[in-house]
Amino acid sequence: MSTSIFYHAGCPVCVSAEHDILNLIGSDNVEVVHLGKDRTRITEAERAGVKSVPALVTPNGNTLHINFGASMADVIG
Amino acid sequence: MSTSIFYHAGCPVCVSAEHDILNLIGSDNVEVVHLGKDRTRITEAERAGVKSVPALVTPNGNTLHINFGASMADVIG
Repeated sequence: MSTSIFYHAGCPVCVSAEHDILNLIGSDNVEVVHLGKDRTRITEAERAGVKSVPALVTPNGNTLHINFGASMADVIG
Repeated sequence: MSTSIFYHAGCPVCVSAEHDILNLIGSDNVEVVHLGKDRTRITEAERAGVKSVPALVTPNGNTLHINFGASMADVIG
């Protein structure tokens, strides 16, 4: 399986969803990116269609927004 | 792995998310419930915390709302 990318910003909703996604998909299959700490990845996330975090970008490029922690505007600050 | 439950209502957002979730988690690990067709499951979904579809209820009982297709009020009609 190719790798999905889980974008988050450390919020409680993000952390809870991260645990669920890693349990469901397997941590080997997911790259976890903290956009608050790794701000160089923000542009990439926006290009992938991420409008809010947490979000999972699948290997085929679909973006799944999972619950709602914070908007990208809030992440960018 | 225990089974997750994917609740949807046949909307385009639901169908797209269903494909992604089944690819990611494996169809053997997910029960797919169409609340528009199987209306006897609506109460169960609401008790699990489903506010909109599509949504995935994990084996440990967490509800992940994935993107946004329709509110439960729309599903109930």
